[in-house]
Amino acid sequence: MPTELQPAADDGVSAPRRGRPGYDRETLLSVCVDVFNRYGYDATSMGMLSKHLGISKSAIYHHVESKEEILGQALDRALDALEETFAAVLSGGGGPVIQLEQILDGTVRVLVAQMPYVTLLLRLRGNSEVEEAALQRRRALTRTVEDLVRQAQERGELRTDISGKSAPRLMLGMVNSIVDWYQPGRSGSVDQLAATVVTMVFAGLRA
Amino acid sequence: MPTELQPAADDGVSAPRRGRPGYDRETLLSVCVDVFNRYGYDATSMGMLSKHLGISKSAIYHHVESKEEILGQALDRALDALEETFAAVLSGGGGPVIQLEQILDGTVRVLVAQMPYVTLLLRLRGNSEVEEAALQRRRALTRTVEDLVRQAQERGELRTDISGKSAPRLMLGMVNSIVDWYQPGRSGSVDQLAATVVTMVFAGLRA
Repeated sequence: MPTELQPAADDGVSAPRRGRPGYDRETLLSVCVDVFNRYGYDATSMGMLSKHLGISKSAIYHHVESKEEILGQALDRALDALEETFAAVLSGGGGPVIQLEQILDGTVRVLVAQMPYVTLLLRLRGNSEVEEAALQRRRALTRTVEDLVRQAQERGELRTDISGKSAPRLMLGMVNSIVDWYQPGRSGSVDQLAATVVTMVFAGLRA
Repeated sequence: MPTELQPAADDGVSAPRRGRPGYDRETLLSVCVDVFNRYGYDATSMGMLSKHLGISKSAIYHHVESKEEILGQALDRALDALEETFAAVLSGGGGPVIQLEQILDGTVRVLVAQMPYVTLLLRLRGNSEVEEAALQRRRALTRTVEDLVRQAQERGELRTDISGKSAPRLMLGMVNSIVDWYQPGRSGSVDQLAATVVTMVFAGLRA
């Protein structure tokens, strides 16, 4: 078993900097989320986290009580950022189409800025209370988008010849796919990405 | 250990019909894919497949040589269907925008018709030769969409003020999200779904 301060095996998952005296909560969270995303949360043991962090399990327990507490903190990171974006848009007025555009734009930016945390959120299966609570918060965000699409259709601002049930899921599915393929620096800027999403969804790609 | 013909535990994953004398390859494949999608391919052992099929491991080995052979057959099911759709569209002419529309329409239909098999494909991580070969076939399909978008932009038929790198990924991401949320019978018909995708991507949602 690795002892405290021993460097982690170099296997591609973030390893602690050599000689670093310990972890702050922020770095610990970041390394754990990388391990969760690589192996799956359920398949990750405290022993695996200990190996990747290069510190003993008891050193981890100095920071957190359980693996689930780390998960909860990571999911809060993603959900807090998404909820703040949605709340700021909804308090801003402007009508449902503008709010939908702002929500998609803001969600793209949160996904890119908090990619490992949102990736973890999007892969949850709801196998525990912490996961189920996170999925409920996620569903509330989906319902907000569904409500805005409905309002915009009722006001005649969005097409009614498309499925109002599917459209919100499809636009969020498009945005969520970003965590699967977007590579900062190689896939273009986040400004271009957000603009492409908003243009495609509302104006369409046809010239 | 379950013996041959013993009913599987009733835990929500497809169980064999009582009194059924054995499995055809088709049913065996279907049950195994459900188990892979539920627990993850890597986390699924032949023992788990045996339990869910309600037949012994040696009875499974009567049908297939390994867990990986089952995976390969399942991925072929998804990829063959997708490749047939793409090939039929590309041989049909009509210009890049019409071909993109037909590819998105056809891909939606394959996803709905072969949902468990495509779900398995979309969750692969490339941890083995079989998986890597499947991901290469998947990447070839993505490149076809990228090429068509580029051709359509060059012909002035699609906007050039959007990211040509991101647009193909976003439209495929939108379509792929269907396996995460579409419920046949509850989310509307596949015709509506395919029409909503094509309308949103090319014409946009704005009324």
